[in-house]
Amino acid sequence: MSIRTSAILRHVALALLLLSSAQVSAQQAVINGADSDPNFLEWMTGFPPAEEKLISQPYSDFWSFPKIRWTVCHLRELLPTRGVSRGTGAPLALGEAVSQALSELLVPSTMGGDTAKAQLDHSAADWLPLKTFLINNYTDGFIVLHKGVVVYEYYGGCLDRERQHATMSMTKSVTGLLAEMMIAAGQLDDSLPVTHWVPELGDTSFAGATLRQVLNMTTGVAFDETYSNPESDLWVYASASDAMPKPASYEGPVGFLEFLLTLQNRDAPHGTRFKYGTINTDVLGWVISRATGQSLADVVSTKLWQPMGAELDAYFKNDARGIVHAGGGLNAGLRDLARLGQLLLDGGRVGSAQVIPAPAVTAIMNGATTAEPTGERYAQYWPGYRSMWWYGGDAARPLIAARGVYGQTLYLDPAAEVVMVRLSSHPVASNVAIDPGVQPVYRAIADILFEAESVAPEL
Amino acid sequence: MSIRTSAILRHVALALLLLSSAQVSAQQAVINGADSDPNFLEWMTGFPPAEEKLISQPYSDFWSFPKIRWTVCHLRELLPTRGVSRGTGAPLALGEAVSQALSELLVPSTMGGDTAKAQLDHSAADWLPLKTFLINNYTDGFIVLHKGVVVYEYYGGCLDRERQHATMSMTKSVTGLLAEMMIAAGQLDDSLPVTHWVPELGDTSFAGATLRQVLNMTTGVAFDETYSNPESDLWVYASASDAMPKPASYEGPVGFLEFLLTLQNRDAPHGTRFKYGTINTDVLGWVISRATGQSLADVVSTKLWQPMGAELDAYFKNDARGIVHAGGGLNAGLRDLARLGQLLLDGGRVGSAQVIPAPAVTAIMNGATTAEPTGERYAQYWPGYRSMWWYGGDAARPLIAARGVYGQTLYLDPAAEVVMVRLSSHPVASNVAIDPGVQPVYRAIADILFEAESVAPEL
Repeated sequence: MSIRTSAILRHVALALLLLSSAQVSAQQAVINGADSDPNFLEWMTGFPPAEEKLISQPYSDFWSFPKIRWTVCHLRELLPTRGVSRGTGAPLALGEAVSQALSELLVPSTMGGDTAKAQLDHSAADWLPLKTFLINNYTDGFIVLHKGVVVYEYYGGCLDRERQHATMSMTKSVTGLLAEMMIAAGQLDDSLPVTHWVPELGDTSFAGATLRQVLNMTTGVAFDETYSNPESDLWVYASASDAMPKPASYEGPVGFLEFLLTLQNRDAPHGTRFKYGTINTDVLGWVISRATGQSLADVVSTKLWQPMGAELDAYFKNDARGIVHAGGGLNAGLRDLARLGQLLLDGGRVGSAQVIPAPAVTAIMNGATTAEPTGERYAQYWPGYRSMWWYGGDAARPLIAARGVYGQTLYLDPAAEVVMVRLSSHPVASNVAIDPGVQPVYRAIADILFEAESVAPEL
Repeated sequence: MSIRTSAILRHVALALLLLSSAQVSAQQAVINGADSDPNFLEWMTGFPPAEEKLISQPYSDFWSFPKIRWTVCHLRELLPTRGVSRGTGAPLALGEAVSQALSELLVPSTMGGDTAKAQLDHSAADWLPLKTFLINNYTDGFIVLHKGVVVYEYYGGCLDRERQHATMSMTKSVTGLLAEMMIAAGQLDDSLPVTHWVPELGDTSFAGATLRQVLNMTTGVAFDETYSNPESDLWVYASASDAMPKPASYEGPVGFLEFLLTLQNRDAPHGTRFKYGTINTDVLGWVISRATGQSLADVVSTKLWQPMGAELDAYFKNDARGIVHAGGGLNAGLRDLARLGQLLLDGGRVGSAQVIPAPAVTAIMNGATTAEPTGERYAQYWPGYRSMWWYGGDAARPLIAARGVYGQTLYLDPAAEVVMVRLSSHPVASNVAIDPGVQPVYRAIADILFEAESVAPEL
């Protein structure tokens, strides 16, 4: 396999994108949230934009910080993409009741402090308004629903209500949810090997892995992330998934699926360990498409976006074969991701329609009890993983999350009847690094709403 | 300027796309409408599609017939694109009342016959149902509105109600309409030279041309379409507008706007002749963006798609600088193009809102009287052109049209209160060739509705 140096350089940032890996640290000088705001930096302004304001191919340009803060809302202008239709009807309306408590919430300027007490002291000089915290934390959109009603909503950076944002690995949770829906409907059986649907995987290291092992990321498939080896899986994956025309000399796999066929090594028996890896979700997407005969984009449209009353179409990045990226390619609107979370809190129902089968809701919402332990790296906040969702909290306040590598989050606190979505473009591509600065704030917000409910039930 | 042979080959079909030129004749063997249906041919089916079912880069592949019959509904999966938001509200509902007369209409199998009498004889063997005519004529979508009500609607080929179709040069009419709206609002003055907004054009053959001359395509700018010369304007334009990464050896202009700066020759004084040319619309788009400070995509969204109650987002092809293609890049839904036509018939009003200023409606709807003569080539059906719209019919039944190179049409017959939209992917990229087979059918349909109105006013 021959991959040219130029191709390697082009794909550095793509790899950063695809692997939410602790080894990945931003090489760029980091500037703060306000100073990296894409409007402040005037990216892509002018007709045409001046060279110093331009964001364009290759990947290594448009995924670099701070350009990424523009890119996360504009991927379709840089790459081929496939639409996820919301249909042609009226969107499902969301109630709105601005929470004074959240508008006035102060957050320690350290961001990682004991923010559970944030609402107690509004006068300390090192406490900042929630909005300032969001700006400082590279937030492009933040919405809080309490009992299905929008109580806080913020757009900044590149995002507005009419635009889709890259969700990165939050995509995995959408793909995982679809799989649970199909299991509940009898269209998939998680005890069967994935080769039942995709026999081609019989010649790869996925041979023998069950659908459940793929769903819970306990397959033993090895994925070589060696940066210094241009023929490591990391670089082959990056080149394969790029939808741009390949150089004439390119001899590697083309597309997400052909890449999966190159995986030949295991570093553990299947089912013996949790190891976070996008390749598992790519396999899951393949299984869903084979079982339904549909692109994953169309499955998301018909099973979720249309029946849940989305207000924006969503879209997926696709490869040169038209296959969408099941493991990280979804771009969606802030409110629609909140609708998805609320749908889970509402037992899968929109009005009288059961959009998500009840057993699938149960599988996601009660997944903590059977989740795989994620290990020391994630233990502080998200010790469990199942069906491509993250689990935290405790028995009294279980927490369920979808998470993307730049801090994107769908955060469900069912006991508090709270759904939060944060879309962001953090310079450090690692939730392990981002979590200490944001998780206490999410908890403080949910506590305020939970307590307000207890204290003032007439709200 | 050095353009490589490989780059030339890649862009052959792009050039076919961009220039609705009589010299352009399809090189491919032509198969009929039913046999070229992309569903019948199973393009892009399978996960992943087999090599013989694949449609992908380069342009010369995906624009070739019959692949084009898939491509016209899937451009965003092959190219970077920019969205035109419909907003987040409920779409404007269209009434529906299926016309029995149209459902039963028979059309001569020759397609170019005296179809005004088509409804008189349903038994002749060489008369075909309207639906069969549409299929035979490479139609992907066809809708007829009478008095604002949908009386006929057909989806075939690659299209359905939730998908956008390439409109090609229909885009020009949308851009021209926006210019008339801005003229009516005092934001543009059509007597000023285009260099008033784009001083850079002072060093090109557009120097001295007025906005009106650009709008009416009477500029004297030469555009060398010599296929055999790899450095002709045709090929430079094709390479410049491609948003894909350029080869390292590429030294030509990048993007639609930089290309315009390369035009240095005139073959007539400005204002002395009509000559259809996409470059005029590209200049117009530049003027609109400079005057508004917005991408043309956002202008279409805020001035038309949102206020007219579109049911689908639309989108534009964009270049490597993020500039959208004002002269041919719009992809839109069938019903939304019909809404745009109805908006013009309704005097620019949606309910009580004046979406299009009345003088701009007049400029488009009454343009025939001041239209430029289009010359012998177009004389039979469309003898006039003004503000990027085509004019035909006569004083009693004036006709106004937006037209795309593969037979796409927005057809307005105000006297009959009829709006028709046809989206299509004809193998012959020339409306001059397509017109004799379709214009009599459009007229017959409008006549049926016009007469039904006269005979049965209680309808």
